[in-house]
Amino acid sequence: MKLAHIGIAVKSLNDSVPVFEKIFGTNASEQEHVEEQKVNVRKFHLDNCDIELLEGTDPESPISKHIEKRGEGIHHVSFGIEDIAGALNKLKASGINLINETPRTGADDMLIAFLHPKSTNGVLMELTEPKKS
Amino acid sequence: MKLAHIGIAVKSLNDSVPVFEKIFGTNASEQEHVEEQKVNVRKFHLDNCDIELLEGTDPESPISKHIEKRGEGIHHVSFGIEDIAGALNKLKASGINLINETPRTGADDMLIAFLHPKSTNGVLMELTEPKKS
Repeated sequence: MKLAHIGIAVKSLNDSVPVFEKIFGTNASEQEHVEEQKVNVRKFHLDNCDIELLEGTDPESPISKHIEKRGEGIHHVSFGIEDIAGALNKLKASGINLINETPRTGADDMLIAFLHPKSTNGVLMELTEPKKS
Repeated sequence: MKLAHIGIAVKSLNDSVPVFEKIFGTNASEQEHVEEQKVNVRKFHLDNCDIELLEGTDPESPISKHIEKRGEGIHHVSFGIEDIAGALNKLKASGINLINETPRTGADDMLIAFLHPKSTNGVLMELTEPKKS
């Protein structure tokens, strides 16, 4: 298993991107909009993973709600895995709380599923697997 | 720049380690104690980074304080970098708030410094560089 990306909830990409560009010494990707999550995203491609800055575009966005409840900060961590459906079955059988019991299609045509942070010490974890074509 | 590890604050390693062992499909390292931070640590070596579970051993530990204020969850993210002293100078000059303006020696004989989460959207970021021998 490998870390794919860390998603950071920010109020304003315009304010945050220049700061992280200085820290990472590299430019953020062009802005993308993910309508299903009602977020704008800009990514930093580091040597071994991505850092995604996420800005809600609607009060109902999970990112806007996260900021309202807990402030800005890390929203989720995403891990790449080979057999997401099999992994979810195993985790469920071992008593781990899942938000998505079966994978759904996310951005970039990936299969994704979230584990419930109640089971994982408050860390919202996403599993991802490239869709078989 | 590459991600080195993600540090997760947990109340009990005994309770948390078995859960993350199931999720990552690999065993945690033996427990280490870092007296300076008053924490016990167990690590998961993933393919491209480490995940560290951190348990405070004293109410004054930064981990215990984090849990008291914000609950369990991600405490910090650590990035490996080549010239930590130079990077800190540049970041300071560009107005980014630093917890450590000069690197100090951390665990595993690494030079480390923390950036202030006020400057980084609530994310506590650590920079690390192996000490020149």
